[in-house]
Order: sequence, then C-alpha cells, then structure tokens
Amino acid sequence: MTAPVRPPLPAPEAAPVRPPLPARDAAPERADLDASGLHGSLTDPLLSAMTFLNEVAGRHPEALSLAAGTPYEGFYDVEDVHRALRAYCAHLREERGYDERHVRRALLQYGRTKGIIHDLIARYLSVDEGVDVDPEAIVVTTGCQEALLLTMRALKRDERDVLLAVDPVYVGVTGAARLLDLPVHPVAGGTDGVDLGDLRRRIHRARAAGQRPRACYLVPDFANPTGLRLSLATRLALLDLAEQEDVLLLEDNPYGLFPLEGQRLPTLKALDTNRRVVHLGSLSKSVFPGVRIGFAVADQQVRQGPGDRVLFADLLAKAKSMVTVNTAPLSQAVAGGWLLEHGCSLARATQDVREVYRRNLRQLVDGLAARFPAPSPVTWNTPDGGFFVVVDVPFEVTDATLEYSAARHGVLWTPLHHFYDGRPVLRSLRLSISALEPDDVDDALDRFAGFVHACAGASPGSP
Amino acid sequence: MTAPVRPPLPAPEAAPVRPPLPARDAAPERADLDASGLHGSLTDPLLSAMTFLNEVAGRHPEALSLAAGTPYEGFYDVEDVHRALRAYCAHLREERGYDERHVRRALLQYGRTKGIIHDLIARYLSVDEGVDVDPEAIVVTTGCQEALLLTMRALKRDERDVLLAVDPVYVGVTGAARLLDLPVHPVAGGTDGVDLGDLRRRIHRARAAGQRPRACYLVPDFANPTGLRLSLATRLALLDLAEQEDVLLLEDNPYGLFPLEGQRLPTLKALDTNRRVVHLGSLSKSVFPGVRIGFAVADQQVRQGPGDRVLFADLLAKAKSMVTVNTAPLSQAVAGGWLLEHGCSLARATQDVREVYRRNLRQLVDGLAARFPAPSPVTWNTPDGGFFVVVDVPFEVTDATLEYSAARHGVLWTPLHHFYDGRPVLRSLRLSISALEPDDVDDALDRFAGFVHACAGASPGSP
Repeated sequence: MTAPVRPPLPAPEAAPVRPPLPARDAAPERADLDASGLHGSLTDPLLSAMTFLNEVAGRHPEALSLAAGTPYEGFYDVEDVHRALRAYCAHLREERGYDERHVRRALLQYGRTKGIIHDLIARYLSVDEGVDVDPEAIVVTTGCQEALLLTMRALKRDERDVLLAVDPVYVGVTGAARLLDLPVHPVAGGTDGVDLGDLRRRIHRARAAGQRPRACYLVPDFANPTGLRLSLATRLALLDLAEQEDVLLLEDNPYGLFPLEGQRLPTLKALDTNRRVVHLGSLSKSVFPGVRIGFAVADQQVRQGPGDRVLFADLLAKAKSMVTVNTAPLSQAVAGGWLLEHGCSLARATQDVREVYRRNLRQLVDGLAARFPAPSPVTWNTPDGGFFVVVDVPFEVTDATLEYSAARHGVLWTPLHHFYDGRPVLRSLRLSISALEPDDVDDALDRFAGFVHACAGASPGSP
Repeated sequence: MTAPVRPPLPAPEAAPVRPPLPARDAAPERADLDASGLHGSLTDPLLSAMTFLNEVAGRHPEALSLAAGTPYEGFYDVEDVHRALRAYCAHLREERGYDERHVRRALLQYGRTKGIIHDLIARYLSVDEGVDVDPEAIVVTTGCQEALLLTMRALKRDERDVLLAVDPVYVGVTGAARLLDLPVHPVAGGTDGVDLGDLRRRIHRARAAGQRPRACYLVPDFANPTGLRLSLATRLALLDLAEQEDVLLLEDNPYGLFPLEGQRLPTLKALDTNRRVVHLGSLSKSVFPGVRIGFAVADQQVRQGPGDRVLFADLLAKAKSMVTVNTAPLSQAVAGGWLLEHGCSLARATQDVREVYRRNLRQLVDGLAARFPAPSPVTWNTPDGGFFVVVDVPFEVTDATLEYSAARHGVLWTPLHHFYDGRPVLRSLRLSISALEPDDVDDALDRFAGFVHACAGASPGSP
C-alpha cells in the first residue's frame, strides 16, 4: 500500500481542499435507496397527514383557516422571549444563588436529562391543577410528542404489547405508535368521551388473544377532534377500571385550561390515588409552541429487583438520553421565565387568550346555528371548551373535498378521516377556532357555508 | 346510572376542586410497574453509563475533570443569546422581507418539520466543508442524537437489519440502537480509524447469516474515544467499499473543526460522489450545547414506486414529526443568528476556542510524556486533534477505579469499557481536554499521575 496522498494543508478557517473527484453519478434513473427496504412507518400515509394538511394550507395562503389547531398568536411578541429569559436568569441568581458562571452553564451547556424547570412545572401542577407531585417524577421533554413517544417506548416490551386509544385520535398518537411498531386498538368514545364498557371489552379481548394491553391514551378535556370532555363521574369510574384491569392511563392535557364557561374539572392525575396515570403535558398552548416544551409526570414506582425501586420518570429519562439527550436548556429557560412571570400559573398566563378562544368558540357554534337552521342535514356538537367542533355534512369528505374548499371557497378545515386509522370514508370534518382572529370567524363561516351548500347541492346525500 | 355529581365550579384561575379522595395507597411494598415488563433498553446498563458518570462528577464537585467532553465555556455569555436572537430576527426582516407578524410567527409558532435554518446550515457546509447540498436535503434536529435515531429508525425495516459501527463507539450510538432493537456489529478501528478488511468481512458475514447490514457508523475526525482520524486515502477507499457493498456511511462530525496543527481533511460527505453518506452534524461544539441543534444531510434519492422519488431527508422528517414534531424554532433562531454573525463559518466562530483545545491537547500529551517517561507501562496515543486521548495503564480500570480516583486523587476521567458493548474488563481509560481551563491541565495531570502511580504500585501488573 502506498502512503496516502494528502492535499495541501489549508488553514482551519478555509474549506478543506478536496482532491479532484469523479463527477457525481448523473444517471437520473438510479435511485440510492428503495422505500420498500425502509421502516414501514416512513411510507405509511398516516404519517403524511400533517404534511398534506400543511401543504394545502401553504398552497392557499389567502384561505381562512378553520383547520389550524395552533394557538392564537395575537398576544405574542419576540420581546417576550428576551424578557422571559432574563426573568429565568434572575430567578437562578436571586432564588438559587447562582453566580454568573453557573447561570451561563445552566443555559448554554448540556443539562440534566430530566430537565431544569421540573420544579417550576411541579409548582404549576400544584397551583393550577391541585396535583402535588415530586419534581423528580417529572421529565421535561421536547414537546408533548416526545413525552408520548418515550412512554410508549417504555411500555412496549415486545410484539405482544398493545396500546388502547379513544377513537378518533390525534395522528401524533397513532404515528408514534407506528414508529415503534406498537399496535393501537381503538376504544369507542361514545358521548361521554370514553365508553367504559367498550374499554373493558377491548382489554379482555386483547388478553384473550395473548396480547398485553398496557395503557389507554385519551384527552379527557375537549379532545382533539371531538371536543368531548369526560364528566367527573366518568373520570372516577375510568380510574377504578384502570386499577381493576391493571392498565395505565396516558392523560394528554393540552386544552384543559380552556373551558367555555369557566368551570374546570380535575385532571385524571389530580384524582389518581393509585398512580395509574401518566400525565402528558404541553406548554405549546399556554406558553408558545416555539419553545417546544412538554413534560411527562411519571410517579409510578418500578420494581427492578428485590428491594430495588426506581421512579418511572427515571426510566423514561434513560430512553430520552438516547432520543434527544436533554431538552434544550435555552428553551426551558424561556418557558421557566414565562412560568415565573405568572406565578407558575398557566391559567393566569392564558387569561387573555382564553377569552379569545371562548369568544371564537361561541361565535362558531352560534354562527353554525344561524347558517344551518334546524332541521338541517348539517349537524355539529357543542363542546364545553377547547378548540374543536365536529361537523357532520351530507356528503363524503375527502382530501379532494378540502382542496376544492380551499381553492374555490377560500376556507380550510380538517377531514375527519385523518383521525381514524385505516382512513374510512366519512361525512365529517373538524373545525378549529384557535388560530383565527375573532373578526374573521364570521367571514370564515360564510365561506364554509358556501362550500357546504355547493357540495350538498351536488351530492346525492343532500336533502 | 345517576347523574355525575360535579364539584362546585371554580374560576378558571383557581385549581379545580377535587372531591374527597381516598388516601393514596400507602403500602410501601407495592410497586406500580415491574421493570421486567418494560422495554429491555430501560434496564440495560449501557443506557446508565452517562448517568453513572455524571453522578460520580456530581459527588466530587472539587475534582478536576479529564472526563467531560463538553465544550470549553470560557467564551460563552448569556448576552450572546440575546444578540444572536436579534441577529436572526434582523435577517428575517432584512434579507427575507418578513414583517413583524411573520418574524413572530417564525420564532414562536410551530414550524417546518425539516427546520427553518436549513439554508444557513447549507451555507456553513459550503463555506467550511466544501459540501454543496440542496438545503431541502437537510433535516434540522434536536441535537445530533435525534438525527442519529431518525436515520437508524428509517434504516431498520425489520429484525434482519443490522448496523455496523467502528469500535469502540460512543454510547449514544449503541444506546439509540438498543432503543430500536437494532443490533450493532462492531468493526475494528485498527490504527487507521477503520479496518476496511474487517468492515468487508463483517458485511459478508452478516449477509451470510441472512442479515442486512444497512450502514456503518463512524466518526472520521478525532473519534470519541480513540482520537483517531481517517487519512484521505482511507476515506476514499471507504467510500469505494460502501459503493461496492451497497451500504450507507453514517458520518458523525462533531470534532472535525479542531485539528491540532491546522490541517483539516475533507469530510466523507465532501468526497461522496455517489450519495453513500448520511452526514450527521452537531452545533453543540461550535455554537453551544444549550441550543440542542444538530442536523442530518440526507440527499439520497429514495424510490417509492415507478417514477416516484423522494429525498431521504423527507422520510426522516416524517419520522421526526412523530418524535419531536419539529426542532424548537426559538433554538434554531439563536443558532441561526450565531451562524449569521460569523458569516456562516463555524470555523470562524470557533477560532478562539480552537486555540484553547490545541493548547490543552498539546499540554496534555507533553504532560503525560513528562510524567511517564519511556520506557513506562503507561502509554497513550497522540491524536491529530479533537478532545480525546486514550491511556493504557498497567491495572484494570473499572467504575470503582474511577470512584477511587475522584475521591482520593481529585481527578475524573472515563473508563474505556463504557465505549464497548458487553463491558469487557480493560486496562484503558479516556482523557478529555475540552472542559478544562488551560491553567488547570498541569494540576489535573499531577493528580492523574498520582492516581496512576498509586494503582500501578498496588497492582500485579506494575513493572
């Protein structure tokens, strides 16, 4: 072997000198990889849903959006970020006694896997939710999605494990399960938000088939897309069922702060006397999405061996260290400052925006009633809060229907089939009120009514 | 069924009122979950390595660290964050013509799955690395770890797929593979950084066993922990081998900017004429770790069906949407501002810190020679750059040896067995120079020599 020929040594600031290279393979017909050799989730249409919906929105920038579930941004300002960051630094100096070196290290270096604002999130849970939990049982994550993925990863030991999820369900849940090859068994939501009889039957049926139902995922408050909320009695009965059947409950809680009439119900975690609930939290709707901060409350005791216990949160953290190492300390600092500025109350932090959501939701429901007076083949539910209303229409709602609505009527919404695995053909769609300026709701509804009348008139299902 | 009894309706700002609840299950002997029912990765000692090493460091705050691979923080300041954020906002306004509403939305809302600073990362790749790549082929990730995980997820279709990795290897690689139940086959590093004969044999052996070797992971520049760098000739031969054997190369490049003598070699991606390389980048060592920004360059064409091609980056993005949704736009904005402030040259951005690393590495290698003059049973390699030196000592190096070193000699380092799957008993350890103040290197070496002499004197392996 001859000695390697090195190119001349450039200064480190300059790009390294490359030897002359053969031309890049120009044959356009050659593919480098074949999708059939990659993991099945990557070509699953399920995982393309969000991309498709964003693309439609991107192609029709002038359309009004009754589709976006993103938070209302009218009260945000980039200067809030600078202020929140300074507030968190002041907290480190004044309440924790950090010197400048430690402040700098906390924000700019790697950090604790379970996060650095776990104490502030624990305070929020106590102040707003009446949940008193050891801060050590909290894992701060890169958005709620990572918290969900970590929990699923932990609970899926092998191919016998299955997850239950109240149907219809947000694509982030079924998508993350696909990524882990974790089957999801749908549970009927019924009119209460979860059909407990169906849940029990599904658990028994899975066990009879040799499977292990590990947990049931649900959004007890104003679920996406149905807007349904579990009553207090249903919450208590669900917790009893989880205890009897030895399954966990994965409680996702992005919308609990936004009831229509002011009343809030206790979260499952607040009622959880037997540590049956892993509570999944998001700050995207209460701080802002750009920080990408979520968390899991996982206070379960896990037996590792005789006399050897560990918090479930610590095992989730182990998985996290191999997914994202830790959650950006910088983002945590901004979210932490935001919490501190509002006395660790997200209810207080969202006072203004909550009024926007209430006003928009009332206007939407009233506006539907005005435009589709009973009796009408167009019906909808009236949720007690949150962002979403499901509308049933007298025609099939496909992605092509959405394209037509966007192009011809200038209004976006979400076909409900995106919330069902297997993509059935449905006559339902979801409206969301969160991203709209209050002044635009009526205009959006006019456009929506125009679209519905056009389709209903052309449809064999119209009256 | 009776109507659910609702508690009094609190104001939304107040914590919801809970009904009287039974006392929390106080039986301390009851565990809620059993580790044997959870995914095997969570109880794998491999995934505890980082935690253990951090714990030792935490218990001995006064010890000098030749263990930490974290970047030198002497040049950081929290005000840099504010400045970088303003620089990115100015860029959006002035170069992209964003109004305030769009700036706010870009930073504070959800964002593009593949990221918002892909264009700036593409500029860095061109300026510093001579790599010209379509920005659309870049996925911005929550640290390099997520880029690695996504790539592994994509490449593991089923239980036949295996990853090759040059041994010894950073625990983040084997750990992420464990999380995905992806077997990792070690490839000898030899003295060149990769033993190409062994790589080819491993590929053939795996295929003969019915497995599919998909890719080989390696760090061509100053690998962790060996400090080895692939010569240009080895790089070119490795690319040829990858093409002949139809495997990908996963090139991880955290240390390439830090050569000892100024010369840099082209990255594998810069030499990659046939799109065989997925380049995994990290900004943790060149911007700062607290932003948690990494990226994958995945310009492979993936065939999805007749005439249907997609960039591999777009499939990684699909997986990403189910892991973290998107990378915190706020963090990306800070990293983007940092890039802009240095003309998108990370080589320029790291000019000061590079001098620290050089000085520390020279001081370490010279200091070892002064303290263990030849002939000595203590030997070490002399890398051409980066952070790490491997030291062979005449006694077995276990976690208990590290505890002893920290407690009795006030110096931390990393047992080399943490970089080997299966945890063999070794007589080697890794020293790192990145986190030390230059003035502390000699003191750390004095302590280290004291520790080595104490152990060697007590060891049957001593001369």
